Amino acid sequence: MTDRLYIFDTTLRDGEQSPGASMTRDEKLRIARQLERLRVDVIEAGFAASSNGDFAAVKAIAGAIRESTICSLARANDRDIARAAEALQGAARARIHTFIATSALHMEKKLRMTPDQVYEQARQSVRFARNLCADVEFSPEDGYRSDPDFLCRVLETVIAEGATTINIPDTVGYAVPELYGAFIRDLRERIPNSDKAVWSVHCHNDLGMAVANSLAGVMIGGARQIECTVNGLGERAGNCSLEEVVMALRTRRDYFGLEVGVDTTQIVPASRMVSQTTGFVVQPNKAVVGANAFAHASGIHQDGVLKARDTYEIMRAEDVGWAANKIVLGKLSGRNAFKQRLQDLGIEMESEAEINAAFARFKDLADRKSEIFDEDIIALVGDESVTGEIEHYRLLSLSQRSETGERPHARVAFAAGSAELHAESDGNGPVDASLKAIESEVHSGAELMLYSVNAITSGSTESQGEVTVRLQHGGRVVNGVGADPDIVVASAKAYLSALNKLHSTAERVAAQG
Amino acid sequence: MTDRLYIFDTTLRDGEQSPGASMTRDEKLRIARQLERLRVDVIEAGFAASSNGDFAAVKAIAGAIRESTICSLARANDRDIARAAEALQGAARARIHTFIATSALHMEKKLRMTPDQVYEQARQSVRFARNLCADVEFSPEDGYRSDPDFLCRVLETVIAEGATTINIPDTVGYAVPELYGAFIRDLRERIPNSDKAVWSVHCHNDLGMAVANSLAGVMIGGARQIECTVNGLGERAGNCSLEEVVMALRTRRDYFGLEVGVDTTQIVPASRMVSQTTGFVVQPNKAVVGANAFAHASGIHQDGVLKARDTYEIMRAEDVGWAANKIVLGKLSGRNAFKQRLQDLGIEMESEAEINAAFARFKDLADRKSEIFDEDIIALVGDESVTGEIEHYRLLSLSQRSETGERPHARVAFAAGSAELHAESDGNGPVDASLKAIESEVHSGAELMLYSVNAITSGSTESQGEVTVRLQHGGRVVNGVGADPDIVVASAKAYLSALNKLHSTAERVAAQG
Repeated sequence: MTDRLYIFDTTLRDGEQSPGASMTRDEKLRIARQLERLRVDVIEAGFAASSNGDFAAVKAIAGAIRESTICSLARANDRDIARAAEALQGAARARIHTFIATSALHMEKKLRMTPDQVYEQARQSVRFARNLCADVEFSPEDGYRSDPDFLCRVLETVIAEGATTINIPDTVGYAVPELYGAFIRDLRERIPNSDKAVWSVHCHNDLGMAVANSLAGVMIGGARQIECTVNGLGERAGNCSLEEVVMALRTRRDYFGLEVGVDTTQIVPASRMVSQTTGFVVQPNKAVVGANAFAHASGIHQDGVLKARDTYEIMRAEDVGWAANKIVLGKLSGRNAFKQRLQDLGIEMESEAEINAAFARFKDLADRKSEIFDEDIIALVGDESVTGEIEHYRLLSLSQRSETGERPHARVAFAAGSAELHAESDGNGPVDASLKAIESEVHSGAELMLYSVNAITSGSTESQGEVTVRLQHGGRVVNGVGADPDIVVASAKAYLSALNKLHSTAERVAAQG
Repeated sequence: MTDRLYIFDTTLRDGEQSPGASMTRDEKLRIARQLERLRVDVIEAGFAASSNGDFAAVKAIAGAIRESTICSLARANDRDIARAAEALQGAARARIHTFIATSALHMEKKLRMTPDQVYEQARQSVRFARNLCADVEFSPEDGYRSDPDFLCRVLETVIAEGATTINIPDTVGYAVPELYGAFIRDLRERIPNSDKAVWSVHCHNDLGMAVANSLAGVMIGGARQIECTVNGLGERAGNCSLEEVVMALRTRRDYFGLEVGVDTTQIVPASRMVSQTTGFVVQPNKAVVGANAFAHASGIHQDGVLKARDTYEIMRAEDVGWAANKIVLGKLSGRNAFKQRLQDLGIEMESEAEINAAFARFKDLADRKSEIFDEDIIALVGDESVTGEIEHYRLLSLSQRSETGERPHARVAFAAGSAELHAESDGNGPVDASLKAIESEVHSGAELMLYSVNAITSGSTESQGEVTVRLQHGGRVVNGVGADPDIVVASAKAYLSALNKLHSTAERVAAQG
């Protein structure tokens, strides 16, 4: 038994499975680099067999990251596992994570397999995976609702076949801490070769207890790996939050007594990057990374904080990467200063052409906004003109007006492939008019499910607005994000970005929770 | 020992203490009515002695609510307690909640009192409170970090003086479930008269464990009251979430075995009302009340859900009040239909003049938006023209335009008291230009800390935008909220609403967490 606890981040796999959170290869690569700076032990980069896009993302991340182990998910079949191994070839350290459901409900209703068939498939898959990779993780999906006798039989066998990590998912977020911890402890006690594997917890937050369940799995159950995501991103109520579980382990080291390798000062930058990339806002009253997490309002508390910091603070804001917004660059900053700032932010551009495109966007922004913050730079490098990813739709120009008593009106010009389209419309507001104008040419028929705006930086009405638009069409849900000091322009960009995602025909198979 | 667990909601007291979440008397009254529909056992309506506004809010709620017990917080001194009792006079059932810090750190650094002084003050305050009210709750602030011997001495005495509820706050969110539960169990075992009071838990979410800590306090510690807030609103990372803890108790009744009186179908309406009123967004991956809480993205999951609902769902969306948006009213709806809908939504207007003003706003909205949803109505009744609360600043008209390559420009007319001001400005975008125009006349000098927009309803680009603006000035933080189909108009309204809050000079004392 070691005192080291491993942090397995699955933001790019289970987190990305949230409706609307899908990311491009470049976005995933950027987040993987931040996860490496955060020093997580394992990065689950995707599910290579689910789509060509996911394969490419896992491959790119495996090629770029040196410090963290890179993992790909795979169903318990040879094709998925071979595909995962192929995507992971360039990795410094690789892991294959294979899974199959073991609860009676899932075996019967979803897999339509008998327990013996599931047992056999688990055994063969782990054997096959071990021939391709020395580091193999096995998850019995819906493990926490599985029959313990059957689970013992399956897990003993997959450990004998060489699985090095055994993960017990609470797939539906049904667990309570005491029971979940005892469930894992009993499995470990009953399985004769349980000490040959590292045990892992994977919890969902449907009842608000993912962090406590994970920690009970560690303290009561003896698990030594926690699977989690930045901002608790993930399907439904999301996964165990990385920032919460890591800060609980740090703040209460007196109780947990375990070492975690994470560099906590990278938590807030990671949170912002994930939130900006996916368009999933972090609520102000979110632990550790919410805007209010370190803010005090009441007179009594303020007084207390002034008199002695520990009266109301158990963590320090700077330890998790909160810092005052710094004005980093402005209109007069040159290309070298900009390039240096990109490096400081850990943003690696792949070519000089990309840096030039980013610098051009930066100068354009600096003409309109006197103070450029780190957040602005992060938003800017996500811009399509910078990444060079070929987008079908692209905004060319927009003009709009509204006046009390009259109907708002907008004119929009945008590229669709090689064509240039011009459209105009009125609407309830300038945003509505602009989106209606675009839709009058595109005829996507998509339903707008969510529209939200956040200022990228605070402290000034000059902030850029970052607009997230979520569209649903034909069973698919996509998020588009657009940033601009003009909120109407940002909205049009976000809408076109979402249309681009709908336009890409990529189909994918997705995975267990 | 009873099988009944009491839910004590403190959204209007500890929740309102979040920076920027302060509410008007009418807003608090509206939320209190929703909490009564939710059937919480106790509503902590405010801290009567902290300000005249809070006194008025507690008094109004005490007069309006018949089903739930109404509680006011009071520091452990005669003046605060007398003021609480006075505000609660009209209540059907009243409770006085008095507190004093008992941890060494808080006594020394904040109160600058000896333990004996604190002991004596606690004793006298509870005695005084019991003479005014039969239902008295006592909280040792920072109780979880207090010396158990000292705490036993204080709590035994306050129970002997007649305290009927003993609440153990984890004021700084430092607890872990097992230890917190054991802490309360030990106190109950050591204090000879502990069975004369109901024990209560009050947890904060700084380490993401407020729900699990509360439930450990119940299961291990034997507490039978949980203090919580809607959406987990509260200072820093917030309080224990009402919706999460209640749904954990319901979904895992097999384990907890306790009865809760809450009508869970009122949870989502309560969540929306609190979010719309405070401008605090609920993140999509928030348990129970987040937009994604019941959404499934991945192919495997969708397939599973279609084959058998329980493969991935442990709760039903309809049980917590999620329902498809219903078109409730439109342009042709008459005054009676509108009045009926207000009643169905539980919105009680105090005069015919208020109903007339709301109906006029409704017709105005229906002219611009073909489908009016419940959320639109809730937003509308919060409008100043409806509530009749006298506001210093009021938007009269706005016109703006922006065009690629030109600088956006806005002209705004607004009332300031009896004066009518006209201003214009350019800016980075139409919102920036509009706010700068207002600021050019008002010269508030306030700093914009947060700007966000959410569509009030989904499913159409015709949605109203709901803008939240957070301003800071001279150490005060206020939120302004404005709704309009035109996002620029909504922004100007939100800014003026925030300026109105800064303009009101109400000072207040705030309280323990």
